[in-house]
Parts: sequence; structure tokens; C-alpha cells
Amino acid sequence: MLKRSGEFTLTHPNDLEPLFHPRSVAVVGASNDITKFGGRTYLSLKARRYRGGLYAVNPGVTEVDGDRTYARVQDIPGEVDMAIVVVAAPHVVQTVADCAEKGVRAVQILTAGFRETGSEKGVLWEEQIARIARESGIRIVGPNCFGIYSPESALTVLPGPDFPKESGPVGLLAQSGGLTSFLVRRAMGLGIRFSKAVSYGNACDLNETDYLSYFGADDQTRMVGAYIEGVRDGKRLFEVTRSTSLRKPVFIWKGGLTALGSRAVASHTASLGGSRRIWEGFLRQTGVIPVVGIDEMIDLMVGFLHLPDFRGRRISVVSGGGAITVAACDELDPAGLSMPEFSSRTRETIRALLPASGNTVGNPLDTGPPVFLLPTVKPILEAVAASDRIDAVIVQHEVGSHSPDFVEAAAQVIPSVRKASSKPFLVTMPAPTTSSDAMDVEMVRRKYREWYLERGIPVFDTLHRAVRALGAVIRYNEFLARHQS
Amino acid sequence: MLKRSGEFTLTHPNDLEPLFHPRSVAVVGASNDITKFGGRTYLSLKARRYRGGLYAVNPGVTEVDGDRTYARVQDIPGEVDMAIVVVAAPHVVQTVADCAEKGVRAVQILTAGFRETGSEKGVLWEEQIARIARESGIRIVGPNCFGIYSPESALTVLPGPDFPKESGPVGLLAQSGGLTSFLVRRAMGLGIRFSKAVSYGNACDLNETDYLSYFGADDQTRMVGAYIEGVRDGKRLFEVTRSTSLRKPVFIWKGGLTALGSRAVASHTASLGGSRRIWEGFLRQTGVIPVVGIDEMIDLMVGFLHLPDFRGRRISVVSGGGAITVAACDELDPAGLSMPEFSSRTRETIRALLPASGNTVGNPLDTGPPVFLLPTVKPILEAVAASDRIDAVIVQHEVGSHSPDFVEAAAQVIPSVRKASSKPFLVTMPAPTTSSDAMDVEMVRRKYREWYLERGIPVFDTLHRAVRALGAVIRYNEFLARHQS
Repeated sequence: MLKRSGEFTLTHPNDLEPLFHPRSVAVVGASNDITKFGGRTYLSLKARRYRGGLYAVNPGVTEVDGDRTYARVQDIPGEVDMAIVVVAAPHVVQTVADCAEKGVRAVQILTAGFRETGSEKGVLWEEQIARIARESGIRIVGPNCFGIYSPESALTVLPGPDFPKESGPVGLLAQSGGLTSFLVRRAMGLGIRFSKAVSYGNACDLNETDYLSYFGADDQTRMVGAYIEGVRDGKRLFEVTRSTSLRKPVFIWKGGLTALGSRAVASHTASLGGSRRIWEGFLRQTGVIPVVGIDEMIDLMVGFLHLPDFRGRRISVVSGGGAITVAACDELDPAGLSMPEFSSRTRETIRALLPASGNTVGNPLDTGPPVFLLPTVKPILEAVAASDRIDAVIVQHEVGSHSPDFVEAAAQVIPSVRKASSKPFLVTMPAPTTSSDAMDVEMVRRKYREWYLERGIPVFDTLHRAVRALGAVIRYNEFLARHQS
Repeated sequence: MLKRSGEFTLTHPNDLEPLFHPRSVAVVGASNDITKFGGRTYLSLKARRYRGGLYAVNPGVTEVDGDRTYARVQDIPGEVDMAIVVVAAPHVVQTVADCAEKGVRAVQILTAGFRETGSEKGVLWEEQIARIARESGIRIVGPNCFGIYSPESALTVLPGPDFPKESGPVGLLAQSGGLTSFLVRRAMGLGIRFSKAVSYGNACDLNETDYLSYFGADDQTRMVGAYIEGVRDGKRLFEVTRSTSLRKPVFIWKGGLTALGSRAVASHTASLGGSRRIWEGFLRQTGVIPVVGIDEMIDLMVGFLHLPDFRGRRISVVSGGGAITVAACDELDPAGLSMPEFSSRTRETIRALLPASGNTVGNPLDTGPPVFLLPTVKPILEAVAASDRIDAVIVQHEVGSHSPDFVEAAAQVIPSVRKASSKPFLVTMPAPTTSSDAMDVEMVRRKYREWYLERGIPVFDTLHRAVRALGAVIRYNEFLARHQS
């Protein structure tokens, strides 16, 4: 039986271990139908070679994928750490009661049809589940969620049989299952791996603060992303986010901060949206990094993954195009970043490497033609990185349809300059084409991006997004410095 | 000789016809070296089958691409409407004087190395060019630019031999050549075509207001996008943008509104950046739609192309995922859009088409699984479109790796529902993958997008971007209604 915290104290982070690392799992409602959650969940766990005991519970069928089934959880001979419940809503209360009788420690209820429907029955059922949890000590994830992804334990109960098998440093909690699934998939192509991800739906028992507290204490997790619709207990959340923020960066996307959004939140996960003003005050005081949208969330993950300790504010932007450098300045300025002029020696070195005109030798550096078309790109970047007035270099890499030889040569440049210098490099790489006829260019772009990311060089689609992520890293590290001294 | 307007009156739009539709063109500095502007410009014009007289001027070579060359513009036997000047900066003043002597009507100076360098010589040369223009009546584009793209006249002097040959309704003026080139290429995959595009650099003679005035009067141009770094004459720009805005939408991205950006603007195109406060007042009073960045500019083009007259404010969002609908509400609310509840009859119709739970029957409509996985997607969208409480429908189309049969069937749904209904549909289609291993999914996404766009259905990467574009269309049409009544 899991320990349960008092009403106003925290769930101890260790209490959630059985959720993320269960020794045995029962899927209640397992079936052979891969188009349904019951089939997808059971077969995904098997396919990922879940290493603990795995049991199929379903009174209606005799076998699932060749494995025997049990009519009830209580019929399973061995111990069951966790049950994943996918039976229809009217059967969930009884199933949770069965789990309590069996001594199951944690239950994920993927089934929807509870408080979020606004129906009397749904509300009642959810209250009954919560009562069983309180009385028995079972901890509940959900209902109305996609549950937990924990690669280390080969656990994937999101509809994510294709999720990476490797663990990584990012913890993710999200009230929405669809968002969790979309974000993990999109992030994986950018080299982002997760310690655990939890989609927690209506949060009838465990809620945002419990998960955040777990990720705060979890050594595997070096940063935490959260999509939160409703807050159960603002005071607890405040304390936990503040203490977590002092240990690792926390990004929160708060849904439902508008009147309309608040209404949507109620019917999505039966939560209360809350006011923007309260939320903004909250963020200021806790050091949490506010986020809106999946792209921004992923950009922050990329930024903190590759530049976790960066604190400099003196940036150089190198690009082959003046508008881009103007835009960079317009972005850097409000982010509190500066773009110091190079010394005259640095300027002279660069000037000697560029044609007499059609460029701007200074910071920002506009090389005229796209950076990688220059035979002299390497010494130019070396000169920029060598400047003691600069803390980090952002290079706009414009991808074209070049020969494989060109691509291979170009790909060496930044990693080699970066290796020789101690300065971080960031790369911006906008998609130059949008047509289905130009997939070759998009392919080259993605290959470059993966190449850079594998070498510790963060890549962003646009300068706006690079600057936003960099600014967040810097502000976070300054927050840490202020509060740790 | 072109007419020249007095100091405080406008250049008459017709005066710029020789720029966009010259009957004959001389390329001064034409060469066989395709890696240089002189070669690229001449050979691009030839490759596009420029229909007027085309002359190569270069005293150093006897032929370019098999065509005879002339040592000076004056040696050309026929009339020359326009000269494109790509000789080195020290030779430009003499070249412009030669053009004046020849009676050339307009000159594009692509060469850089003038006022933007800050050098005494550069400033002096630019003043000399401007003086020749004033005295002779020649009109000058540039210097330090990529010049003009005018598909109708087979004119492309941007480094854009691959630019579309077809004309379209969008006029573009941009102080940056790189931006013009990038934007045209990126937009073309989204079905956007241009009446003309002009990159105008330092604007030593013709400036932003002249071009805007031309596009305002040009019947081919139904909307105008502008990237402006510096403003020469705020009063004139105010009058022209206001009168142009009353005829067609004008989107302006103003670079250099921050202190840092202002400095970059000076070294890019020798312009003065200006203050954000003045600019914001300007925008409010002129009906101009403010833009930041290339993505937003292109989104507006897509929005105004497909929904030019849209004015409704009552939106329905249909998506398979609750977080997305919450996000949609959070976006719609500040944009002044509403998401009215459906009538109970509409709700009942939809409810009968969806499973008992795992969805939210209402507006926003969360169908649970991705919209296109539902066999009932078509009648659901029909029910939404039929609601008399709704003016437009936004559908989130999540692309997966499906069979060609599935893709083909799914692609029919929205166009067919839309055709039967009078309501506009917008589609949002986020990229689900980022990896180079998943190009197939990106390919399918682009194919769907092209399919929808060809059928008049605007597509955006994210809900945020769809709502932003839709909000701009609505606000513009309300501005028109207020000022035309």
C-alpha cells in the first residue's frame, strides 16, 4: 500500500515510484483489437518487452495475443503493482474496487466519461473512485488520460508504440493525452528524450503538484515541461514549483487563461482555468518559465539540453542577409541581450575575408550571400568566436539544393569551429521551401539539423525562436544565481 | 523621360510602369560567370524568355552567352527602357550618367557599397547618383538591392531564376533582397503568386511610398506586403498607406523598431529605424496590418487570398484532442472572436455520430481521436457547418502515416463539405514529425496542404497562426466597412 500524504502536505515523491517503475502490470480490458485502447495498450507493452509480470484481464475473452486472460484482477496469482484500466466508464468503479481488494498500488484510468462530461453519473463515478483511492491508499492517474510513458521501464500506455526506447533528461506532465503524444513524437526528431511523461486527465487523485514534485526529486529528470489546465491547490503548487525551479528548470504552459479557454478546460478535463493576472504573479515569484504552445515548449527543451548553464548576454549574429540581422536585433533587444560591436582588430580580420561590398562587417554580421556559400565561412566564424566581447554565436544556416559534397563540407564547419572555441553556437535554419516538389531540400535541412544536434549545437527554425529559447535559459540561470547566493 | 513629382507630391503610379514592364533592358556588367550577379541577371532574363530587347553591356568581354556586348549603354542602337546595373561600385556613377545620356527611363542598381557602408566615398557616390536622377528624370531602384521581379514581363532580377512564371494577386516591396527572395520561394509552395515584387535597398530615389503607391493603383495587385526598414517621409507614407488600405489590405513588417535593430538598419540599408510608439500610432490610423516575420506575412497572404471578404466572428473549432481546443479558445478570445455553443439540435446530431465518451460535444468540438480517423467525420463536419450560429469552421487535420487509400478518402472530406455549405473552412495541419526518417509523413502533409489550397481552403501550420490570420482578415474588413460607409 502506498503512503498517502495528509491533506495539506505533499505526496512524497518516492510514493510515485510504482507508477513509473511498476514490477508488474495488469491491463484491465485488454483485448485483441489494436484499434481500441485495450488492445493497443496490452500489445504495445508486450512489443516493448515490458520486463515485469504482464497480465491481461477481461472476462469476455479467453486469450489476448495468445496469453491467458483473467476475469478479475483478484484472479491474478502474483502481486500487481499497477493496473491500467480501459474498461467502459460504467465498469470502472468496480474495477478500482477490485484493484483495492487485490492490493494493487497504482491505477491508471485511461477511460473517459467522468466529471468532464458534466453528467451526474460521471461526477458521481469520479467521486466514488476518489473515495476508494482515499480509503484504500491506491494512487490514481486519470481518469480520462493516456497515462504514463516510462522508457526505462519499457512502459508506454500512451498510444505510442513508436516512442523512443531510450530515456532522456526531460520530464513531461500534461493534462492532455493528445498533446503528450504529439509532443513526444515531434520532439524525438530533435534528439529530445524523456525520463518519463505522464498524461493525467481529470486528476481525481494525483494532480499536477504531485507529478511536479516527483519530477523535482527524480535524478533522471533535469528539466520539467508541464501543460496544466486546472490547478487543484494553488498554495501547494506554488511551494512545489518554487522549490523545483531552484533545482531544475520548469516550463509551464497554462491552458484556459481566457474566458473562452476556461470554458473549454471545464469540458476537457473538468478543471478550473483561472485568471491570467494571478497566473502571471505566480510565475514571477516561482522562477517558472512560461510557455505558450508546443513549438515553444520544444524549443526550450532544445535550449536547456544543449546550453544548460549559459548566462552570457553578449551575442553575435552571423547571417547572409541584412533583414535577418535587423530582425535579430529587434528580437535580442527586448530579450535583454546585447550585440556588442567587434573590436577593430576583429573587424579587420573579417573584412579581409569578405568582398569589398555587399556585406556589413560588424555585429550583426551580414556576410551578403548565404553564409555557407562563402569559401571563407570557417575563418570568419573563427574570428567571431575568438572575440572576447562575445559570449555566444548565432549562425543562420540557409539550406539550398546543393551537391552531397557541398553538404558534407558545409556540415563540418560549425562543429569544428565550435570545438576549437569555448563559445556556444546556435544555428537557425528556416525551411526555405514548402512545396511537395522540394522534399530534397527539406531532407537536407533535417539531416543538417540532426547532425548539429548530435554534436551539441541547438538548432531552431527561426531567429525569433532561437532568441526566445536563449533568453529563457539566461533568465533562468540568473534566477538561480540570485536565489542560490 | 519619366515624369518626376514635386518634392511633396506623389510619384504618379503610372510613372513606375517602365520599371515593371520595360520594353527593353540593358544589363550593364553582364558576364558569363553565373556565380556573379552580372551573369545570373543576364542569363536568368534570357532563360525566362524576356520578350523585349535584351542587351549585354560590358567593355571587358566580346560576348555573353553567345550574344554580342556593347562597351557602353550609349552604343546600344535601339531604345533602352531600363538598365540593370551590376558593375562595381566605383563605376556606378558613370554608368548612371551614361544611362541619362542614352535616355534610359529607369535604372536598377543592384551593386552595393554606397551609403550603407558609412564610408565617405559611398555616401558621395550615392548623392551623385541621386543628383543625376533628379536632373535627368531617370528613376532609380536601389542601390544595394536585388531589384524587381515581374512575372508578367518575364522580369526577374532577383537571384530567382526558379521563381514562378505565373502572375498572382500579391504585391511585395522589401528593403531587403534576401528577404524578398526567401519569401517568394517559400510562399510559392503555398500557392501564392505575385503581381510584382521589388527589393529596393537604399532607396536613394524611389522609396517605400512610391512603390506602395504603385501597388495601390495597380489592378493586378489585390494585397500588398511590405518589409520597411526606414521611412523617408512619414507624412507621405501616412497618406499613401491610408488611401491604399482603403482599396486593398496592406501588411507592413517594420524592421529596426528597437535601439539595436535601428543600428542594424543603418548598416543594412542606410535607413533610420524610428520609434515603436510612433509606428504603432501610425498603424492604428492607417488600417495597415502590422506583421512581424516572414511566417506571419505569408499566413496573411494565404488568409486574404482565400477569405478576402470574411467578416464573421463566430468560429467553430473541430479537433481530435482537448488541449488543442483549449489552446484555440485562448487564441480566439484575445482576437475578439467567439465560439458560440451549438444549438441542442446540432449537439444531438453530433452526439449520435460519436462514441459515448472520450470526446466533448460542443464548440470547440473535441472528437477524441484525430478527426480523420473517424468514419463519421463527414456528417460531423456537415452538422457543424449547418449550424446557423457559426460563420467559419477551423478543422485540425492531424497527418499520420496512412495508406494511400486512406489519404485519398480523407482528402475528399473537407472540400466536399465546404462545397455543399457556404461556410468557409480553415485547416490547421501541424507537422507531426521532425526527423529525417519520417519524410513520408511530411510529404503527405504537403500534398494535403496543396490539395486544400488548390480548392480555396486556407491551411496553416498551427491554430495560433490560423487565428492570427483570420483575425487580421476580419479586422481589416471591419476597418473597410467603417470607412466606406
